[in-house]
Amino acid sequence: MQIKDVLVVGGDLRQIYLANRLSQINKNDVQYRVYAYALEKNADSLENVTVVDKIEQIKKNIDIVILPMPVLDIKENINTPLSDLVVKTKNIIQIVEDNCIVFGGKIPKDLIKSFDDKNIRCFDYLQREELAVHNAIPTAEGTLQIIMEETAKTIFGSNILIVGAGRISKILRKYLVGLGANVIVSARKAEDYAWIETDRCKFINNKNIKNVVKDVDVIINTVPVKILDKDILTQINNETLIIDLASKPGGVDFETAKRLGKKTIWALSLPGKVAPITAGHIILNTILNILEELEEKHE
Amino acid sequence: MQIKDVLVVGGDLRQIYLANRLSQINKNDVQYRVYAYALEKNADSLENVTVVDKIEQIKKNIDIVILPMPVLDIKENINTPLSDLVVKTKNIIQIVEDNCIVFGGKIPKDLIKSFDDKNIRCFDYLQREELAVHNAIPTAEGTLQIIMEETAKTIFGSNILIVGAGRISKILRKYLVGLGANVIVSARKAEDYAWIETDRCKFINNKNIKNVVKDVDVIINTVPVKILDKDILTQINNETLIIDLASKPGGVDFETAKRLGKKTIWALSLPGKVAPITAGHIILNTILNILEELEEKHE
Amino acid sequence: MQIKDVLVVGGDLRQIYLANRLSQINKNDVQYRVYAYALEKNADSLENVTVVDKIEQIKKNIDIVILPMPVLDIKENINTPLSDLVVKTKNIIQIVEDNCIVFGGKIPKDLIKSFDDKNIRCFDYLQREELAVHNAIPTAEGTLQIIMEETAKTIFGSNILIVGAGRISKILRKYLVGLGANVIVSARKAEDYAWIETDRCKFINNKNIKNVVKDVDVIINTVPVKILDKDILTQINNETLIIDLASKPGGVDFETAKRLGKKTIWALSLPGKVAPITAGHIILNTILNILEELEEKHE
Amino acid sequence: MQIKDVLVVGGDLRQIYLANRLSQINKNDVQYRVYAYALEKNADSLENVTVVDKIEQIKKNIDIVILPMPVLDIKENINTPLSDLVVKTKNIIQIVEDNCIVFGGKIPKDLIKSFDDKNIRCFDYLQREELAVHNAIPTAEGTLQIIMEETAKTIFGSNILIVGAGRISKILRKYLVGLGANVIVSARKAEDYAWIETDRCKFINNKNIKNVVKDVDVIINTVPVKILDKDILTQINNETLIIDLASKPGGVDFETAKRLGKKTIWALSLPGKVAPITAGHIILNTILNILEELEEKHE
Repeated sequence: MQIKDVLVVGGDLRQIYLANRLSQINKNDVQYRVYAYALEKNADSLENVTVVDKIEQIKKNIDIVILPMPVLDIKENINTPLSDLVVKTKNIIQIVEDNCIVFGGKIPKDLIKSFDDKNIRCFDYLQREELAVHNAIPTAEGTLQIIMEETAKTIFGSNILIVGAGRISKILRKYLVGLGANVIVSARKAEDYAWIETDRCKFINNKNIKNVVKDVDVIINTVPVKILDKDILTQINNETLIIDLASKPGGVDFETAKRLGKKTIWALSLPGKVAPITAGHIILNTILNILEELEEKHE
Repeated sequence: MQIKDVLVVGGDLRQIYLANRLSQINKNDVQYRVYAYALEKNADSLENVTVVDKIEQIKKNIDIVILPMPVLDIKENINTPLSDLVVKTKNIIQIVEDNCIVFGGKIPKDLIKSFDDKNIRCFDYLQREELAVHNAIPTAEGTLQIIMEETAKTIFGSNILIVGAGRISKILRKYLVGLGANVIVSARKAEDYAWIETDRCKFINNKNIKNVVKDVDVIINTVPVKILDKDILTQINNETLIIDLASKPGGVDFETAKRLGKKTIWALSLPGKVAPITAGHIILNTILNILEELEEKHE
Repeated sequence: MQIKDVLVVGGDLRQIYLANRLSQINKNDVQYRVYAYALEKNADSLENVTVVDKIEQIKKNIDIVILPMPVLDIKENINTPLSDLVVKTKNIIQIVEDNCIVFGGKIPKDLIKSFDDKNIRCFDYLQREELAVHNAIPTAEGTLQIIMEETAKTIFGSNILIVGAGRISKILRKYLVGLGANVIVSARKAEDYAWIETDRCKFINNKNIKNVVKDVDVIINTVPVKILDKDILTQINNETLIIDLASKPGGVDFETAKRLGKKTIWALSLPGKVAPITAGHIILNTILNILEELEEKHE
Repeated sequence: MQIKDVLVVGGDLRQIYLANRLSQINKNDVQYRVYAYALEKNADSLENVTVVDKIEQIKKNIDIVILPMPVLDIKENINTPLSDLVVKTKNIIQIVEDNCIVFGGKIPKDLIKSFDDKNIRCFDYLQREELAVHNAIPTAEGTLQIIMEETAKTIFGSNILIVGAGRISKILRKYLVGLGANVIVSARKAEDYAWIETDRCKFINNKNIKNVVKDVDVIINTVPVKILDKDILTQINNETLIIDLASKPGGVDFETAKRLGKKTIWALSLPGKVAPITAGHIILNTILNILEELEEKHE
């Protein structure tokens, strides 16, 4: 039985659930001793996890450090919404040593460089495809929740347009069809059309969105490109709900939408908001996958 | 082209949407001239509907009267949440004449008798099986919404127990399985077990509920019998969400549940709350079905 | 541990698989010692089952006798397609004694009377609702198989009419929608229409079948009433596949269909044909349910 | 209205259905005059298509030539199973002129070169991703058909292993789960595992296949690599059905499988066999997509 020391630093509820689950894992003869730092406001929710008050308490030879998602807040300190502590990136750099492995979501380039300079291996789990796929599930569920909360009709029988044919579109349209919606998906490529049809949805080319927006109850954008511009927005009924799932700058001209009286919701980072337990487990599983791949390479 | 005069009286948003839709219908060469009474607070939402301020304005030979659901409020007046008017049942009885047909949800016995005495045909749409089936959809969607709002996990991967094997159970378990939940349904009869299995759920006998409640994330009761008593409640984790969909007296010993710190939600009348447009259309379609059947009999 | 002696008599592959499975069961501290009679042609497939050559070998105090489905052949002997033996019903009556329980499918009235006269309990499993529900699955799968074998299109994208809204219709339309067909179901009652809609199919009234038959690739009848008469058959394209699942007299005027050159398949008793293992297990489970209910009553 | 002349040469039923459908199309103000050559045995099935007996009859300025799939037979002539004619590739090269566009499936390199030398544009539709996706549907349906025909159980409740996580796996596992099978999919990458889980299947790593094969009723291989070798085959029950969908050399050591008495089916080119109408339409749609893209480039 091997014991590995893990320090979980900052972040939101996802880090709490990640820490709890990690402390229960016993796989391939490895167990984890988990320390939490800068999560003290929710210390009550931590189980089998040692809360560390001061960074000096952390013993130097820690095996794994798990930074939050996103790693930094707007002041460029470590993002610690569940703590009153101010944690600087240099505090973290100081405590990691030779064989430590660092994980985080959206790790800034200069921090990566700092770890590199110390020969510390560092991985941004946000760049892993399996995390993106798994996150599509809470994102899709959160989108269903928004539709249910914001419309006075059932999803059953509603006409719904999804802009984009990526991961979230794939999960979301399957869910919506299962709930009895009439779904139309806009895309650009013949192969995307083929997949859309196999999911029993209709397809249109992105450039023809204008022709269908006036007949739908809900529009969900998944593409980080300003597709819903003034030209299209003017075609949309004021009763139609527009949900934008695309990260900045988003796919909707929000200013114009507001001026025209359109009902618009920009729903970012749904997994952490609607299902923090699941979102924490998804991050943890991705980290464990990376660790397993490192082991395999090593063998 | 035949024109029928319809008076929609009182009720909530469902009556508004019912009135609007009815005014658009043109079927079998019949059109409807729709009057709304005791809905004046939402007059802005009415389209092609004449708002009547005083009951005296209503001309006597009205063809159809649509009372709300439920017909009466706690003071035994007509239920008029979107109005400041007080409408007595006798006001309604006075205006209906010989060939008028009256519809309503949960019409009290003595009101039915009053109409009978005047030879007025009167139908309670709540007793129609197709309304119950259609209402199972907004009820199921509303239940999904509650689960999503109240739990920190995705439905995907959650363990969910549904108590009961009726209409709502049938729709709800299909939705939950489609969203990736592991669903177990409790019932009593071998034929119910068979249907449960065909929906790719596990089944247990109601009397064995106690054995599984501690392993589920969500419990949904659909049976109007106190099944979740103290004995079973003590077995349930405090993290588990209990949703009771059963009409009074409900299926949960709420007092004990509260004392034990269980997370319980008694979710009644979901269709009108989560999807008033759809709920209004369902009522309207049921009324139109009844009218069609009357026509057929007549022929 | 209690041992019960069971005699399995005659029948097809379903009896073989029923016998094998029964010999493996160990539930509620009961085990079964299984004897097979009049199944000798497939003796090789029997496992842990004692093959009995002559009825005299069977010891008198047998606990359970399982007759085949159907019990009788056209000569009114026990139906024994996997045997050269001629087994008379009186042979069976002779060997059963006081506490024996007899099971069978389609037990003729006079045989039931003979058992009654001897105070022998006798159950026709075909009258059990759960057997009918479970059998709807192999029936639906068999229907899919026929469609796949007999048409040159995929089910995906095909237009399919199902006549009837009973058990088989419910399972079959779910499967067909899942495979991407456009399904229309004909029925008679508003509540059936409601269920059909919840399964994302269109509905029509039986009396309007004539209007849609010319636009479908496949017609599946599930109702044992001659609905597809000459009047309707003449409307159907010669490329359209007609599958009749209804037991005698069937729902198709086969003579006229043949004369008009329609492609018609009368597919009876699909479970035993397309999935004898599953069909045998379904019968066995129904028998075990009946035995369990007898135990419970007894307690 | 523009008229384009199209010559459909050789091939099987897919070419017949492709020709018929093409003759009905009227899109973007273009219509097609369709000639069929070397399809005379099924001339009766052709509608609005002119059958050409001798290649000399074909007028020189043909716009589009559609060769069969595969283009060549084993003698390296054009593949003409529905004709007694011997058609040489040089016959085709002779009739095409400057602006003609040639389509075919599996066009050999030297034929491509011949067209290039004449400045004829030539496209192999088999290399189009959307054709591969669409073909996954008849392939999956054909696989269901084989399972139904070759096993004595229902798919409902069966344990099924799919080797591989590509297009066919994605469609097939969705169908199998919908029909109630317990599906396990073997793959190699964490992101494939993620997609497999979202489809409510279990996943294993390809190298652990050996551990599960003995517990499944059906194994479906989709990977053109000899994964099912002697080592794994010996673990498989003789009742288990093995279906290999992989193109040559296939994924099964067939010789060893046969020697060990395993039930193996190598099911190649299912779309053309089980659903020639659909397969013909898929090819045609792909050709029309290519033509549309050429138009757009031109504009």
